[in-house]
Amino acid sequence: MTRQQLVEQIQQKQSYLCVGLDTDLTKIPKHLQSHPDAIYEFNKAIIDATLPHCVSYKINTAFYEAMGLKGWEAMERTVNYIPDTHFKIADAKRGDIGNTSTQYARAFFEAMNFDAVTVAPYMGEDSVRPFLEYEGKWAIVLGLTSNKGASDFELKQLVSSNGEEHLRAEFLYERVLRTVAKWGTPDNLMFVVGATQPEEFINIRSIIPDHFLLVPGVGAQGGSLKDISEKAMNNDCGLLVNASRAVIYASGKEDFATEAKAIAEQYQFEMKSYLC
Amino acid sequence: MTRQQLVEQIQQKQSYLCVGLDTDLTKIPKHLQSHPDAIYEFNKAIIDATLPHCVSYKINTAFYEAMGLKGWEAMERTVNYIPDTHFKIADAKRGDIGNTSTQYARAFFEAMNFDAVTVAPYMGEDSVRPFLEYEGKWAIVLGLTSNKGASDFELKQLVSSNGEEHLRAEFLYERVLRTVAKWGTPDNLMFVVGATQPEEFINIRSIIPDHFLLVPGVGAQGGSLKDISEKAMNNDCGLLVNASRAVIYASGKEDFATEAKAIAEQYQFEMKSYLC
Repeated sequence: MTRQQLVEQIQQKQSYLCVGLDTDLTKIPKHLQSHPDAIYEFNKAIIDATLPHCVSYKINTAFYEAMGLKGWEAMERTVNYIPDTHFKIADAKRGDIGNTSTQYARAFFEAMNFDAVTVAPYMGEDSVRPFLEYEGKWAIVLGLTSNKGASDFELKQLVSSNGEEHLRAEFLYERVLRTVAKWGTPDNLMFVVGATQPEEFINIRSIIPDHFLLVPGVGAQGGSLKDISEKAMNNDCGLLVNASRAVIYASGKEDFATEAKAIAEQYQFEMKSYLC
Repeated sequence: MTRQQLVEQIQQKQSYLCVGLDTDLTKIPKHLQSHPDAIYEFNKAIIDATLPHCVSYKINTAFYEAMGLKGWEAMERTVNYIPDTHFKIADAKRGDIGNTSTQYARAFFEAMNFDAVTVAPYMGEDSVRPFLEYEGKWAIVLGLTSNKGASDFELKQLVSSNGEEHLRAEFLYERVLRTVAKWGTPDNLMFVVGATQPEEFINIRSIIPDHFLLVPGVGAQGGSLKDISEKAMNNDCGLLVNASRAVIYASGKEDFATEAKAIAEQYQFEMKSYLC
């Protein structure tokens, strides 16, 4: 999916919601748990119910890998089920030497029909580049994440090495944003920025004004949709805000899809007010 | 596998070779490519041939994921085929928020019988901890990698934040070694250090004298076995040196397994001289 197509979807739906399919067999409604295709059936019902209210789905590969071969199969079937109107993200946090990252890009862009893969930047340029070499596909590189561990390295300060002057020494995540932005364009590169870091959003927008941000951490992790929308939206919207558990586990009973739809619709309703 | 068991294997075999199964359908011998289980059959032959000469196998998950469901199945069958005398590494470079890393740990330690998973440190403590919570299982965290991109972030210098004084400002990878070493012990935590960075090995051993290092980059990537063995071996050996392409693609013909065995035996012979 191109940037223009994504922006059109956001405008049509008045939503920048991404629904995260972190589907866990132990957390889906009891009546589905014994179904032979439980994960796929659950995902299908969630997708059918939330389709009009979101523009993207994010599949967290860990939850599928944890179920072994059956899980990988459920992931493949799920991504095939999502219509091409919706931006399909493999939240896989991959990244390895170039030769190996090329294989990961093939896995998610060729063997499966994802539009984007999340990528960890630690190993540098050759670990990210292979994901940028597909027409209409995207790398979504970790910038500042929503978890407590973000303070361990992402928020450590670097010694200036390029003569650039900043008001204070750069954080590692800021260097990542500045450096990685040179490897791609706002048409094939996004960044992950957690919703739990609202005080950083204005600064982040000064570094990467044009890129889309994938923002997890709203809902279960405590981030505020209002806060991030006010601070980080750009002229093209520039945001995909992800909610996973808050939507897909809105109810643990037979009405799970109806309740997921209701929550997704609430997000859409709130997003509409920020898009005006 | 415990550290003691691994050290015993190294002493018995007089080898610290890890054979990397980066198996690529387009690179295996032509006569196998049309086999319905080509990848598994190739791996089985390589394992049978190299078993006496190595102590570990490393499965690079990217190569299997690139083949979709069939690839994931070949990976599961391959890890089941490797005997428990050998240390089984999933070279997966995983790492995500704690909740998600727990799922990755389940994938590799429960759904599959790996002894260790390689982990990217960018997201900090909660992204690494779940891999350290299994008896006899290991996290192998990226320190300084063998690729060109290592210079983009791993070799950037950090502002001192804890009052510790060093002769020069710490590299990010040094901070990673110092910080991550506090989260685990030499009995459940190793680090990846590329063989292409020999000038850093003495320094690395001063930071983490006791941990095992997984060292890729020998062979196809150009690192020297002599160099790293002289600089980084400790009293328990403390090294797993990986060779992938140099062993498994030693010949592209029907004698591929015999040639792989010959190369593995050469490594073992050389390693024996450094272990004395």
